[in-house]
Amino acid sequence: MNTTTTIERPIISKDELLAAWQGHRNLTRKVIEAFPEKELFSFNIGGMRPFSGMAMELITIAAGGMKQIVTGILEHYEETLSAIKSKADLLKAWDDTTEQINIYWPQIGPEKFHEDVNLFGEYKFPAIQNIQYFMDNEVHHRGQGYVYLRALGIEPPFFWER
Amino acid sequence: MNTTTTIERPIISKDELLAAWQGHRNLTRKVIEAFPEKELFSFNIGGMRPFSGMAMELITIAAGGMKQIVTGILEHYEETLSAIKSKADLLKAWDDTTEQINIYWPQIGPEKFHEDVNLFGEYKFPAIQNIQYFMDNEVHHRGQGYVYLRALGIEPPFFWER
Repeated sequence: MNTTTTIERPIISKDELLAAWQGHRNLTRKVIEAFPEKELFSFNIGGMRPFSGMAMELITIAAGGMKQIVTGILEHYEETLSAIKSKADLLKAWDDTTEQINIYWPQIGPEKFHEDVNLFGEYKFPAIQNIQYFMDNEVHHRGQGYVYLRALGIEPPFFWER
Repeated sequence: MNTTTTIERPIISKDELLAAWQGHRNLTRKVIEAFPEKELFSFNIGGMRPFSGMAMELITIAAGGMKQIVTGILEHYEETLSAIKSKADLLKAWDDTTEQINIYWPQIGPEKFHEDVNLFGEYKFPAIQNIQYFMDNEVHHRGQGYVYLRALGIEPPFFWER
């Protein structure tokens, strides 16, 4: 008797998810670049943080989150963040995080994505849901950066430009 | 000879992706609800659209995009959108779209996700990339809605609240 097994191609592969995330991160980098130095660290609307503060949160979550998912080590990045004083510093930390993500990503085995990770000791969800949160949270804050840029009379980068 | 085939669980299943999207749509619905009637249709920052305009774009893209992916029929929803005059109308159109997505979703076969769809006659990408765009675009504009709410002195819904 012959049996045929059809293995469905997954909707989104591991490589595709990384490419989508790094594409988003590339666009967010352009948003950081689009801010004038002073406004990046000072301009805000409605009592919210300046965009530098949002970008630092994204760095902490991406670098720290990936490190914890892969190694189990919980790091808070206070020193890294407190050293960021300029747009150049912020872009440097952003690029370091890009590298960290690329190093950690291949180390997440296929089953690991479905195992719970108690992210930052607070958010206990399967790793994949934490990673989807990293991406969603970035798109959310980047959208807010677009409003800041528009309010400053600056044209934001095209949303498709990854 | 015995052969063992290990079928890896996909990172994100079709059901999980729908749940993530509908979770996002539920949160966006709360953002629509949080706006006062007048400001929903009039308040803006930096020459951008009021949040009602963004929500109408999301409705068109989600309902029209899913219809095109499943049936191949391209619809523009001018009539639906021009009939929206109040928050209640907008929420009704939002909920109708939620139902449409739930009806169309099971009709997308596993291979279909990887086939090109020339969305709205303009964006020729695999269906899955179009769907990821629907979600990203929603999170992007919802983030902008959060800034509008903060600028109006209104506390937005908690980001985790799906």
